[in-house]
Amino acid sequence: MSDPIRIALDAMGGDHGPGVVVPAAALALQARSDLRFRIFGDSALIRPLLSAHPALNAVSEIIHTDVAISNTEKPSAALRKGKNSSMRLAIDDVSAGLSQCIVSAGNTGALMATAKLVFRCLPGVDRPAIATVLPSITGRTVTLDLGANITCDAENLVQFALLGACFARTVLNIDKPTVGILNIGSEDMKGHETLHDAAAVLQGITFPGRYIGFVEGNDITAGTVDVVVTDGFTGNVALKTAEGVGKFISKVLKEELGGSFMGKLGYLIASKAMGRARHRMDHRVYNGAMFLGLSEVCIKSHGGADAFAFSRAIIVGADMVHNRFNTMVADQIGKLAEQETFVSMPIPSPIDVNAD
Amino acid sequence: MSDPIRIALDAMGGDHGPGVVVPAAALALQARSDLRFRIFGDSALIRPLLSAHPALNAVSEIIHTDVAISNTEKPSAALRKGKNSSMRLAIDDVSAGLSQCIVSAGNTGALMATAKLVFRCLPGVDRPAIATVLPSITGRTVTLDLGANITCDAENLVQFALLGACFARTVLNIDKPTVGILNIGSEDMKGHETLHDAAAVLQGITFPGRYIGFVEGNDITAGTVDVVVTDGFTGNVALKTAEGVGKFISKVLKEELGGSFMGKLGYLIASKAMGRARHRMDHRVYNGAMFLGLSEVCIKSHGGADAFAFSRAIIVGADMVHNRFNTMVADQIGKLAEQETFVSMPIPSPIDVNAD
Repeated sequence: MSDPIRIALDAMGGDHGPGVVVPAAALALQARSDLRFRIFGDSALIRPLLSAHPALNAVSEIIHTDVAISNTEKPSAALRKGKNSSMRLAIDDVSAGLSQCIVSAGNTGALMATAKLVFRCLPGVDRPAIATVLPSITGRTVTLDLGANITCDAENLVQFALLGACFARTVLNIDKPTVGILNIGSEDMKGHETLHDAAAVLQGITFPGRYIGFVEGNDITAGTVDVVVTDGFTGNVALKTAEGVGKFISKVLKEELGGSFMGKLGYLIASKAMGRARHRMDHRVYNGAMFLGLSEVCIKSHGGADAFAFSRAIIVGADMVHNRFNTMVADQIGKLAEQETFVSMPIPSPIDVNAD
Repeated sequence: MSDPIRIALDAMGGDHGPGVVVPAAALALQARSDLRFRIFGDSALIRPLLSAHPALNAVSEIIHTDVAISNTEKPSAALRKGKNSSMRLAIDDVSAGLSQCIVSAGNTGALMATAKLVFRCLPGVDRPAIATVLPSITGRTVTLDLGANITCDAENLVQFALLGACFARTVLNIDKPTVGILNIGSEDMKGHETLHDAAAVLQGITFPGRYIGFVEGNDITAGTVDVVVTDGFTGNVALKTAEGVGKFISKVLKEELGGSFMGKLGYLIASKAMGRARHRMDHRVYNGAMFLGLSEVCIKSHGGADAFAFSRAIIVGADMVHNRFNTMVADQIGKLAEQETFVSMPIPSPIDVNAD
C-alpha cells in the first residue's frame, strides 16, 4: 500500500465553514482511503461534526485557532493580520512538511497571496496560474489562468501551457494533451502580439503537451483541446460568463417546466434522464481551482461549495500529490529553459484590428 | 403614415446566400410593412426566389452583380478587389442615399473594413464597435465591443458606453439604461488601469445611460445592467464562450432525453414548455451584430442565420433607422466632448494582480 496523503484543511473558509468541510472530508475518505486530515479552525465547531464521522475522526487531527480570514479581507491585510488564521496555519503546515496539500474555500485573493508568499513558485516558473477543469462535449478541458495574473507576457503563457499540460497528463491521465491559446479567431494573424509570440515558442518546443494553435471561446466547451491557455483577465471573464449562461438556462428551464401542468408531468417522467444530464454538467464534479506553479499543492474550493463539491476539491489535490504533479513540472520547466529562446524568435505578424 | 425605410441587402453573404436572404426579407416585410428593399447579388438566383413572394417582389429592386466576397477573403483583399461585390455595392448604395441601412451575413472583417472606409465614423467617435443583444434572466443585455477593436483605451470604452446606452434607449426603449464595465470583480481596485480610467470618466459625466460600476462575466446573462462595455478581445471571447455553453447544454439535454424511452416520453409531454424555454433562449431572436459609431446603419447577420434569424437582423436595422439612433449618438457625443476632461482625471488605484 502506498503512503497516506496528508491534507491540510482550512475549515473556516467559504460560506459554510466546518459544516461543509468536515462532511466533505468524510466523503473524500470514502473515495480514497489513503487520506489523512489535519483540520484547522475552531475546535468547538469542528469536534462535534467530526464525532459524527467515526472513520474520518480516526484519521484526523484538529489544530485549533480562533482566527479566520473573512471573504471581504484584502489580500494585503490577510497577510499582515492573518498569521494565526486557519488559512495561514494550514498553508504553514504544508510548508513545514506536516501536510502535502492545502484545501480552502476561503478568500481567493488572500489564499493566492499567502500561498505565493509561503510556498513561492517552483524554480523556473515566473508566476502561478489558477486552473480549473470544465466539462466539455468530448470530455474535460483544463483552462488557465482564471484570474491570478490580469496581464501576461508570452513567457507566462508558455509556462501556463506547460503547467496545464502537466496537469492534464498527471491528473486527467491524458498522455499527450492538446493545447490551444485562447484568441478571437483561429487564424495566425488574429489577436495580440503576445499571443503570436507565445504561439511561436510553443510551435518550436518539446513539452508534455501538443500545441495545436489558437482556439476561441466556444472551443472550451466543444472540447477542441485538452488545455486552454489565456491571461487571467480573459480567463476569469470566460469562466464567469460560462457560469452565468449555465445559471440562465437552468433558470429558464425551471420556470417554463414548472409553470404548467404538462411541463411538470413531462419533467417528472423524464427525471432520470434530466438527472443524468445534470450530472454531466454538474460544476460540483469539477469544483476546485488549482493554483499551479507553486512549490506545494494548493486547491481553492468554490466559496459556495457543498460537501460533495468540496470533497471533489480534496480529491483533485490528493491526485496532484499522488501523481507527483510538481515533480513533473519541475522536470519539464528545466527542459523548457534549455530549449526556448525568446530572443531569436521570428517577428510576429502585425495585429489585426478587425474581427473575422 | 411615416416614410418607408429602404434596406440594402447583400444577398450573397453568409452560408446560404439568397436562399435565406430573400425569404428573410419577406418575413421582415410581414412584421414591418414600411420596408423597401434593394437586393444586391446574382439576379438569376434572386429573381425566382423573389417571384415566390409577390408582396416582397412589389417593394424590391434587384441590382445585379456577379461578384461576391468569400468568407475566407482577408479584409484588405476585399477592399482592393471587391469594388463590384454585392457587399460593397450595398454599402455604396447607403452612402449614395438610395438606402438607409445595409444588412449582410457576409465576411465580418470585410464588412467592417468596407463600412469603416465608406461610411467613416460619426464625428467625435474614434472607433466603431460591434454590439449585440443577448437574452438575460431579467430581459436583454446589450454587449459591446465584440471584436472590432482588440485593444481599447479609456476614451474608446466611454464612447462604447454612450453608443450602447443610445442603442438601448432608441431600439430597446429603455429610458435610462444602466451601464457596467466588464471586469474580473466589482470592487473599484480590480482590473486594468484602462478600466479604472473609463470608470472615473463615466462616474463624472451625464450621458443617456446610468453608469453603475464594474460587472463580471455572469452579469451579462444575469441582466445586472442593460449595457455591458468591454474591449473587442474580451467581448469576443465572452460571446463565443456563451455560445459554446449554450450548445454544450443543448447537446447534453438532447442526448440524455433522446437516449431513453422515459426521456423521450417526458420531453414529448413537456414539449410546449420546452418550446417556450427554447424561444426565450433563442439566439436567432437576437441575431444581428450592430456596427455602432459609423455614420450609417450597418448590421451583420450571423453567417449561418436562417430566414427567421436574418429577418431579425433586418428589423434591428430598420428600428435603428426609424428611431434615429445615429442622430441621438451625434447629439450625445457632442455633449460628451463638452463635459469630459481626460487630462484632469484622478489618478487611478494601482493594479491589483490578485484575484478575489
